[in-house]
Amino acid sequence: MNYYGDAVTRLIEELSRLPGIGARSAQRMAFHILNAPPDRAQSLADAILSAKTRVRRCSVCFNLTDDDPCHICSNEHRDKSTIMVVEQPRDMAAYEKTREYKGLYHVLGGAMSPMAGVGPNDLTIKELLARAAAETAAEVILATNPNVEGEATAMYIARLLKPFGIKTTRIANGVPVGGELEYVDQVTLARALEGRREI
Amino acid sequence: MNYYGDAVTRLIEELSRLPGIGARSAQRMAFHILNAPPDRAQSLADAILSAKTRVRRCSVCFNLTDDDPCHICSNEHRDKSTIMVVEQPRDMAAYEKTREYKGLYHVLGGAMSPMAGVGPNDLTIKELLARAAAETAAEVILATNPNVEGEATAMYIARLLKPFGIKTTRIANGVPVGGELEYVDQVTLARALEGRREI
Repeated sequence: MNYYGDAVTRLIEELSRLPGIGARSAQRMAFHILNAPPDRAQSLADAILSAKTRVRRCSVCFNLTDDDPCHICSNEHRDKSTIMVVEQPRDMAAYEKTREYKGLYHVLGGAMSPMAGVGPNDLTIKELLARAAAETAAEVILATNPNVEGEATAMYIARLLKPFGIKTTRIANGVPVGGELEYVDQVTLARALEGRREI
Repeated sequence: MNYYGDAVTRLIEELSRLPGIGARSAQRMAFHILNAPPDRAQSLADAILSAKTRVRRCSVCFNLTDDDPCHICSNEHRDKSTIMVVEQPRDMAAYEKTREYKGLYHVLGGAMSPMAGVGPNDLTIKELLARAAAETAAEVILATNPNVEGEATAMYIARLLKPFGIKTTRIANGVPVGGELEYVDQVTLARALEGRREI
């Protein structure tokens, strides 16, 4: 429906193709852009195009990056003896935010999912094995998502890593910090009990 | 925090300046753009810039438009004897979606609000009076929002229109269709009772 003329309608349509953006949010964003100073719109458009042209995958860990290798792989202060395997760049960012991890990463690009037609060859598993063989990694931490696909992928990779004799670990399941037991599902509660530690 | 390199980080920052977009949505939108075919990103950037350059206010009704006068003001099939006064272009769009209104519009650009420092001169009230004086309008429908600012603005405009001898109406207050009385506030319930009609 064209209530505002073609240019606004097209902008609203383009914005509403973004994930999680419905017609109403897209309209709100479009009006915001129209009311903002012209250089703000220019700056947003530039950011979109420059990200699209400049960003590539790191040839080592497959994180998104402007420079290859990425700033984590090329950082001399990072602990090269540990590789944390994650599904997506955002999972890597989530762990970086904790500031608790100082090793390297390996981004799989997803998890194995027969339903979605994603097999081992669609992920960077081969490259992970090459790194495990070539590099001085002492430990591979499997930090795929704690769901069915993530678990299956972690198990699959763990089996492939076995012959290399590298320590392979999986991040712990348990109750989330700050949560309330009442709202935690039964499987998680059971895992938290199973993984209990002496204090 | 720069986890993905400058280009992605900048894109996330730019997107998170949009209204209603937090850091997490911005990140999700950025990854969507990065994973989409290049022409999609180009198309989004183009839409932003072209909207920003081409869109202006209709010189008659102040709606957003590519052409002046806008497609409603220049539409010969619209009923020129009625002008509906709304605060924003989105309110106009909301009424257009009903397909129940065939007259013209007048976009005020907001409502009077001493708190926000918006006075009558910040709105297109003078232009509305000029239209009322010059055009063949038989009725002005005040469809400002049903809140304090909208009501005050409607009352203010109604008083200014009095000398012109034009019929001035206000959209009805009442219970929203499809809602449940239980969740409707008391003032609305009282107004709905007050405005009751024989059936």
